[in-house]
Amino acid sequence: MNTSNRQDHIRLTSHPDPGAKVRFPIMWDAPAARERGPIIGTVTKPGQRNVIGSHGGSYALYRALAVSSGALDPIRRPDLTNTYPAVTIGPFPQWSEPGKIVSLDPWGHLVADIFKTEIAEGFDIRPSIAITRARLDLIEMRDALAAGRLKADGNAVHANGSLSVVKFGTTETTLRRDLFEQTAGMFPELVTRPDLRVFLPPIGGTTVYLFGDVSKLSNPRTRITCRVHDECNGSDVFGSDICTCRPYLIHGIEECARAAQQGELGIVVYNRKEGRALGEVTKFLVYNARKRQEGGDAAATYFERTECVAGVQDARFQQLMPDALHWLGVRRIDRFVSMSDMKHDALVGQGIDIVERIPIPDELVPPDAHVEIAAKKAAGYYTPEAPKPEDLKTSGRPLEKY
Amino acid sequence: MNTSNRQDHIRLTSHPDPGAKVRFPIMWDAPAARERGPIIGTVTKPGQRNVIGSHGGSYALYRALAVSSGALDPIRRPDLTNTYPAVTIGPFPQWSEPGKIVSLDPWGHLVADIFKTEIAEGFDIRPSIAITRARLDLIEMRDALAAGRLKADGNAVHANGSLSVVKFGTTETTLRRDLFEQTAGMFPELVTRPDLRVFLPPIGGTTVYLFGDVSKLSNPRTRITCRVHDECNGSDVFGSDICTCRPYLIHGIEECARAAQQGELGIVVYNRKEGRALGEVTKFLVYNARKRQEGGDAAATYFERTECVAGVQDARFQQLMPDALHWLGVRRIDRFVSMSDMKHDALVGQGIDIVERIPIPDELVPPDAHVEIAAKKAAGYYTPEAPKPEDLKTSGRPLEKY
Repeated sequence: MNTSNRQDHIRLTSHPDPGAKVRFPIMWDAPAARERGPIIGTVTKPGQRNVIGSHGGSYALYRALAVSSGALDPIRRPDLTNTYPAVTIGPFPQWSEPGKIVSLDPWGHLVADIFKTEIAEGFDIRPSIAITRARLDLIEMRDALAAGRLKADGNAVHANGSLSVVKFGTTETTLRRDLFEQTAGMFPELVTRPDLRVFLPPIGGTTVYLFGDVSKLSNPRTRITCRVHDECNGSDVFGSDICTCRPYLIHGIEECARAAQQGELGIVVYNRKEGRALGEVTKFLVYNARKRQEGGDAAATYFERTECVAGVQDARFQQLMPDALHWLGVRRIDRFVSMSDMKHDALVGQGIDIVERIPIPDELVPPDAHVEIAAKKAAGYYTPEAPKPEDLKTSGRPLEKY
Repeated sequence: MNTSNRQDHIRLTSHPDPGAKVRFPIMWDAPAARERGPIIGTVTKPGQRNVIGSHGGSYALYRALAVSSGALDPIRRPDLTNTYPAVTIGPFPQWSEPGKIVSLDPWGHLVADIFKTEIAEGFDIRPSIAITRARLDLIEMRDALAAGRLKADGNAVHANGSLSVVKFGTTETTLRRDLFEQTAGMFPELVTRPDLRVFLPPIGGTTVYLFGDVSKLSNPRTRITCRVHDECNGSDVFGSDICTCRPYLIHGIEECARAAQQGELGIVVYNRKEGRALGEVTKFLVYNARKRQEGGDAAATYFERTECVAGVQDARFQQLMPDALHWLGVRRIDRFVSMSDMKHDALVGQGIDIVERIPIPDELVPPDAHVEIAAKKAAGYYTPEAPKPEDLKTSGRPLEKY
């Protein structure tokens, strides 16, 4: 990387300035942000950097296009006036409990305030979390109102806050090596700079929607309803009926809205990990293989087909998922709107109790999605009644009958 | 990068094997796939590679985690049995017209067939496009049926095919340099290997939904309705009322469904470029700045607020967007469901005629989104009636009233 955009000399990140010292070392589990140190991923002043990777995740590529076309001045710093969080979140003890949060910067929404002196001095420190407010207008909620499942109160039904994060941290040598190799040599510092301990990878982020009075997060007696949802564009946006993603998400939102009305809190965590973090191309290839296999789409071979195409049944790494809940200071989820054993086990394994699990109501399962649900129940997903062997005979529509 | 996962030696991509030769050079505009050459982004056999970057875009990171955890064998190849496209798309002349398609591999869905000999020989060639069929169940369509805008025919209303692409190609030295610098040194080959001309970046892909009889694509007389939509998770999935994204998308889907019923074709192109390709963190920061500025959220300062925070009003690069339409062989869009001047100009500038532009019906604009629409019309977005100066006085809800 280059020390200035005007020079022609290119310096590879794997071979930094000799004698260069990191001005702000990162002490990850420090009890306060200033002791932890700012996360500096600037691309204009390499000497300031104390992480691998850059701001904006995948969007760094679009930033590059904007710079290349002359639309964006590469040395420009963001004007953060008025962008501070719309509600107060934290600090919570989890933010500095050793090893608790590894995949996001718990102070990522507060950097403009905490490090204002350093920013004024010229250090390029940027927020990695943003918190705003929104009003949600979901046509499905009108159905819920019409059916009497929800009652409007002109207040709590769609109160929410949001945040997005794009961070990720790790220390394992083998993990660094695999990240380097599986991305075809992306970020050589992963292997040449063991002194850099934080990695900002170009992946999709996380959005959290909060329903109800956010200040109740700090009260351990607050009852919490929560859905942790992994992106599925085909269902979430377009309503494809091959899976339960949008119906279950909407059910989670409805449960969260009801919780808010009762003075409790609702939390929806939305992670950008399309197709079990295998991506949509792989997902669609698997759909074709499922529909065309001998005997047709069947619950009994549901996971096998994914593994044939992708080599793995699931790459979502739920072990990192609890970080968003740790960040919110959550120690207990009273109603967990998910049947996933992996999500359940990851949360419980990291000290977040789950009191009750809420399965998707049968009537919300779309016509072609019974294969998925039967297969998941047989594989260990939560179900109030033990799955029956004949459930695995559930079959789906052939590819021609779309 | 390493020549084998069992060795301890690490070879940086910027310093490849001396004397290594690319077995399959890429001739980008060649008239057929075999002459063009296969795109090989394998991470297990560096000697085979003829591109910068790797399969799967952002999801390469999750692949790395799966490998690191032992869940995925790094040298495993996909079993592509039964994954071939569910409908035939192309080939179209645009696939080899010089300079036409630069951001995707037009043969990306056919590689398992075209390069089956090479794949059998052990070359790691993978599909970058997948085509399947789906049935869409959108609650908004029930409203359209109830209102008589749509009539069910049990057939065409939700016929569709899908594809996903994650490719990108470029040759500019300055662009390479900016891509390298703005990503903090990601992929050193961008600057050290000018012989590699194709880059598979870790960005989100594109999904295309086709409504109607896909075989009509090759008939130049086929009337085409098209919406090109850039992702907005807050509206598309959660129904936030600060913008028109989901309502306009749903309107586009309804128009496409109607086109299919009339024996025409509908095309929805969905691009993963959240928040004008600035990302959701930036988008939410801008929302806060808009709502908190003196005088409140106003059409007159709509674009200014984005530029203050991000340094640029928009980073979506619509110049690359027409590739999906070129790939479908489209030369004319009869009904373009978009008001964006940038999208319009990019399509027309690349030889795709637009006959009619369909604005979002006024009644579909959500309560808090009038600011956005007024600002966009004033900035050059298409509108059947000239915008009035007083439109710029349109103001939105304050941050507290969510």
